[in-house]
Amino acid sequence: MTTEQQVLDRIARARRRAPKVREERITLAHGAGGKATQTLVDDVFVTAFANPALEALGDGAVVALGTGGPRLVMTTDSFVVSPVFFPGGDIGDLAVNGTVNDLAVSGARPSHLSAAFVLEEGFPVADLRRIATSMGEAAARAGVAIVTGDTKVVQRGKGDGCYITTAGVGVLDRPGTFGPGAVRPGDAILVSGPIGEHGVTIMLARGELDLAADLGSDTAPLNGPVAALLDAVPDGVRVMRDATRGGVATVLNEIARAAGLTITVDEPAVPVQPPVAGACELLGIDPLYVACEGRFVAVVSATAAETALTALRSHPLSADATQIGRVTEDPSALVLLNTTFGGTRIVDVLVGDPLPRIC
Amino acid sequence: MTTEQQVLDRIARARRRAPKVREERITLAHGAGGKATQTLVDDVFVTAFANPALEALGDGAVVALGTGGPRLVMTTDSFVVSPVFFPGGDIGDLAVNGTVNDLAVSGARPSHLSAAFVLEEGFPVADLRRIATSMGEAAARAGVAIVTGDTKVVQRGKGDGCYITTAGVGVLDRPGTFGPGAVRPGDAILVSGPIGEHGVTIMLARGELDLAADLGSDTAPLNGPVAALLDAVPDGVRVMRDATRGGVATVLNEIARAAGLTITVDEPAVPVQPPVAGACELLGIDPLYVACEGRFVAVVSATAAETALTALRSHPLSADATQIGRVTEDPSALVLLNTTFGGTRIVDVLVGDPLPRIC
Repeated sequence: MTTEQQVLDRIARARRRAPKVREERITLAHGAGGKATQTLVDDVFVTAFANPALEALGDGAVVALGTGGPRLVMTTDSFVVSPVFFPGGDIGDLAVNGTVNDLAVSGARPSHLSAAFVLEEGFPVADLRRIATSMGEAAARAGVAIVTGDTKVVQRGKGDGCYITTAGVGVLDRPGTFGPGAVRPGDAILVSGPIGEHGVTIMLARGELDLAADLGSDTAPLNGPVAALLDAVPDGVRVMRDATRGGVATVLNEIARAAGLTITVDEPAVPVQPPVAGACELLGIDPLYVACEGRFVAVVSATAAETALTALRSHPLSADATQIGRVTEDPSALVLLNTTFGGTRIVDVLVGDPLPRIC
Repeated sequence: MTTEQQVLDRIARARRRAPKVREERITLAHGAGGKATQTLVDDVFVTAFANPALEALGDGAVVALGTGGPRLVMTTDSFVVSPVFFPGGDIGDLAVNGTVNDLAVSGARPSHLSAAFVLEEGFPVADLRRIATSMGEAAARAGVAIVTGDTKVVQRGKGDGCYITTAGVGVLDRPGTFGPGAVRPGDAILVSGPIGEHGVTIMLARGELDLAADLGSDTAPLNGPVAALLDAVPDGVRVMRDATRGGVATVLNEIARAAGLTITVDEPAVPVQPPVAGACELLGIDPLYVACEGRFVAVVSATAAETALTALRSHPLSADATQIGRVTEDPSALVLLNTTFGGTRIVDVLVGDPLPRIC
């Protein structure tokens, strides 16, 4: 969430000197949420759709409807996860929670969702029924209603079973705005729970790795934990982001760049469940880059940090919330990691896509 | 648009005795907008998502946000048209106009759209740029803003170039409600222009038929014509529907069934451009079933019909609006066609999908 002027500046910047897409064809990296995605969005979409309400780096766009009406947040996500069923969830609850979470971390109260299906000819109706049931349950759990939808069917070989696109709206009835622009040196970086469970679960569910672990996706609605946080420290929250594609590392980089401040993370403080840590080590992947679907990063003022953590820990979906770092004055806008072994390294934005189609 | 009680009744009905999906696997017919789609929606989605705000037969769901806030309409559609470029338009303006039109015929003023892309690895970036530009232009033409989006990439062979899902919101600030429940015997059936141009254009663009015609898609935003109509006869409009998948025949059947009244159409009065009529005759397809993407059906009171037509004809996008039929007392809830040759036949709901992926 940013001011209109910031967005206009960003559009102007994007038009003027944003990196251009150099590839002639779309690659998996363009969908990975990292540098290639950002370049594609800036070069192709931001310039073509340019308007003051267009979201900048946020997870949802703030729109005003009518005069005197409430501020509204609108968001959308397509879900193409493979496989569609995995331990701890499926594409259905992922599609509901994903949109609920984008609204929640924008500070809005998620209320209404749409759901559009692109089905591949031959997809089992029983599987679709299971997915729809799961969506209904996820919506009930999050307290939102799926109010409208669409179904398209494509020929065999032109899809992959089931793709779902959800969009959502919610009322932004809290005062103030959240965004990287509010971040200040000294602020605390919190995560709402252990990271990387969703991404590793999907990798293992594909069965391509000779690896098993007692692990399930963290897919969950974050509107509860976010409300607990905002109720406890209404003036202490600077910005929130759910850590999906590209993981916590990507979210922190986006915040650091947009704020023009450096973020320092203490590696030993980053909560990673042993099976996730083990799988990541075997695969040579840093858990900081692995997607979560039920965790968020919150930047809060230093004075609010303790109260914020207590509030988060009071909610079952963020019981293991913890502080992993802080914001420093350094204007190089990097994300630095103080490693477990005593060194410091830069945590850069993801290039390429080591984990396609995890959401 | 229906009352909450009607929707609850419908949910109960759907649960109790709606036709069940008998197929074990999804077929193209499930995406055609006819009987199979309706059965799938009722049996799988309506039962799973059941909630009072869930749209019944409408093109968008009416939701109330906050207390005292305006009534809002929300809608979504996925676009999987093949080919993505065709005479008169492309998947981009189709995706914008389609969602604008669903909002407009719900009586809302379309304002904000989201756009989510599922791209196939290898899709030309230049094509994506062209599509995005076209979306930006369509949005500007319709007076809406694309405020948020998402991009996913799937591996080669798991998509078909570019699928787009748009969702949209608009304020419903006109008094009254529109819906089949308001339809009365004697009402006039209007169409806003010649029918079937989009569907026939797509069929020809596929190049599978040894047929050429000087024809382009009718893709266009309908919020202008709808506003002209509602401004002219604010109390005379019963229900509006844009005639997309399944064409005018499907829209009329939905209205007739929901209203419990019969609709009689005069075949000679149905406006069909000569190239559309010619292609349909060669292909053995009834133009009444062919999709439009810039035409809508309006049911208006008999006394409002002339004023309504004058208002529609004053707008360039509905300059050829005309009356094609009327509502009769007969409770069999059929759609009857008085044919050019003097006979009468039933125009039933589409079964199967003669025209897959036209939108």
